[in-house]
Amino acid sequence: MAKVYNFSAGPAVLPEEVLREAAEEMLDYRGSGMSVMEMSHRSKAFKEIAAEAEKTLREVMNIPNHYKVLFLQGGGSQQFAMIPMNLMKNRAADYINTGQWSKKAIEEAKLFGKVNVIASSEDENYSYIPDLGNLSISQDADYVYICHNNTIYGTKYTEIPGTGDKILVADMSSDFMSEPVDVTKYGLIFAGAQKNIGPAGVVVVIIRGDLINNNVLPGTPTMLRYKVHADNHSLYNTPPTYGIYICGKVFKWIAAKGGLRAMKKINEEKAAILYDYLDSNLLFRGTAVKKDRSLMNVPFVTGSEELDAKFIREAKAAGFDNLSGHNTAGGMRASIYNAMPMEGVKALVEFMEKFEAENLK
Amino acid sequence: MAKVYNFSAGPAVLPEEVLREAAEEMLDYRGSGMSVMEMSHRSKAFKEIAAEAEKTLREVMNIPNHYKVLFLQGGGSQQFAMIPMNLMKNRAADYINTGQWSKKAIEEAKLFGKVNVIASSEDENYSYIPDLGNLSISQDADYVYICHNNTIYGTKYTEIPGTGDKILVADMSSDFMSEPVDVTKYGLIFAGAQKNIGPAGVVVVIIRGDLINNNVLPGTPTMLRYKVHADNHSLYNTPPTYGIYICGKVFKWIAAKGGLRAMKKINEEKAAILYDYLDSNLLFRGTAVKKDRSLMNVPFVTGSEELDAKFIREAKAAGFDNLSGHNTAGGMRASIYNAMPMEGVKALVEFMEKFEAENLK
Repeated sequence: MAKVYNFSAGPAVLPEEVLREAAEEMLDYRGSGMSVMEMSHRSKAFKEIAAEAEKTLREVMNIPNHYKVLFLQGGGSQQFAMIPMNLMKNRAADYINTGQWSKKAIEEAKLFGKVNVIASSEDENYSYIPDLGNLSISQDADYVYICHNNTIYGTKYTEIPGTGDKILVADMSSDFMSEPVDVTKYGLIFAGAQKNIGPAGVVVVIIRGDLINNNVLPGTPTMLRYKVHADNHSLYNTPPTYGIYICGKVFKWIAAKGGLRAMKKINEEKAAILYDYLDSNLLFRGTAVKKDRSLMNVPFVTGSEELDAKFIREAKAAGFDNLSGHNTAGGMRASIYNAMPMEGVKALVEFMEKFEAENLK
Repeated sequence: MAKVYNFSAGPAVLPEEVLREAAEEMLDYRGSGMSVMEMSHRSKAFKEIAAEAEKTLREVMNIPNHYKVLFLQGGGSQQFAMIPMNLMKNRAADYINTGQWSKKAIEEAKLFGKVNVIASSEDENYSYIPDLGNLSISQDADYVYICHNNTIYGTKYTEIPGTGDKILVADMSSDFMSEPVDVTKYGLIFAGAQKNIGPAGVVVVIIRGDLINNNVLPGTPTMLRYKVHADNHSLYNTPPTYGIYICGKVFKWIAAKGGLRAMKKINEEKAAILYDYLDSNLLFRGTAVKKDRSLMNVPFVTGSEELDAKFIREAKAAGFDNLSGHNTAGGMRASIYNAMPMEGVKALVEFMEKFEAENLK
């Protein structure tokens, strides 16, 4: 095959080393005589895989002991319900609306209580993060919710809102483990695995221990209670075993690269190559405001839908795949997660330069 | 490595051909330049994988067009809540209690309405299926629920209860696709993939179209509504893509083996080898009553806990893995799903004969 660089927003590129190891171990995991896919989730071998994954994650993210780490199913979309069902003791919460995913979280939370949208960037098609200096946190809010990196619109929080004594809850699906995070600033962090850390079907939840209790909304299903999963070390029912195994390998890969500080440095370098080109060329332009630009998802346009389509088509033919913007945003988007190599970004910019030269009128 | 036969109850043995293909395609799925794990769930390549999986499943199981097939997350445990949340219009349902999994389903359904346990085999440690001739179906029941094959206790329904005009709902996790099923007898069938058809993290739901609607219980999360998933062809959010891909391969493997009639014949032959030995030897005995024996899960004991433990230990050393009974049942259990080869069962019986000769006093 010709070399393909995969700029998908998720499921997304994974480290080649991880996939090679997975392929090698597919029929016989380290002399066990079976695939990890075939292992009982109660077996010693799998329990070691899960414990090692959690341990590596805790080390790399520096997660304090009073936080629990859960490996669950249902993705971010299920967290949109689990969060209010478990945390909305007063039936009220504050949300900041910075894109489609926070909007979905808001709609879901409304099923369970009063939602105050205390800031929004919907007026400018979510191209920026609202001013955080002037937030009016509701007195009765059980938590304040943000989407830390906005996959579709390519924005990210460069600082986090001050929430006083209120819990901060963050969807970090699309920038999880891309840079250091001070976990102690949050009550709950969740991330769907399928962007930066593994295959779809696993969601990681990091939750402060004192927030886990049986005081959930009436009618909360057993599977949607954090306490059930925390009490059972994510083994209440059969977890997505193979996905956890792959995530564990990605965590080790990040550790071997030097951890989150090193990831941040590399991610900043990669993003700079693309943003510098976007800011200096004459055909393409980025759509997010500069100060709030994501290091992970880079949306851009030419200004002509026709030319956008031509670019996406020719890029695909040249081995740059999945550069279409989200169907609600249009244009192009290059997702450059941890596993996207520097060469991939450089090659993309070279291709864009060529396309610019050919198509600039 | 020495050859290992994996008798795990789930996650469980998968066809070696499937794992070989998965290993070969891990870094480059058919010239796409990427792993299936890395593919956008909205990509043409993945949509084809999902559509092909559903098509093969429909063909092999002969699923009529007016039934929807959904690939969801959360396993059987989440179905225990989704079923009442979506189907309990009158807030009442009838359940037959044949083991731990139906009991869990009963406890969960009680969160949402009135549950009538219309038959139970709890009195004899779930070693049999209750008499179905004499059932008193509740007038207000929205559905009647059974667990078709009981993984822990090794029993199965050889016929299904007559439910008149009431919907029959069945958990088929541990005997899904092990023999032909007349889908039209059921309103809803579900199966966790991790026993007969794939990795943990996928649950297949087959549901009659007219049962899918927005009339769900108040507070039902979006992700727990069948209609949301049916309307979006299981792509409402990111599905467990890699798991669906493996399931699709297993469906093809079953089709290539001759479909469900052929599977049943092979499964009956495999089970007969083990049951015939259990019925004729002097050390081991099966724990389920003969008429209700499962073709998939075969629990047995020696009568001595010490000897059971010795057997499990020596069997493991000889390459027969995961023969411990469920922790609530004790003793031994050999799960002999579709993918367990005939040689595995024959080799196990030979090993049991040797152990019998050495340990019979």
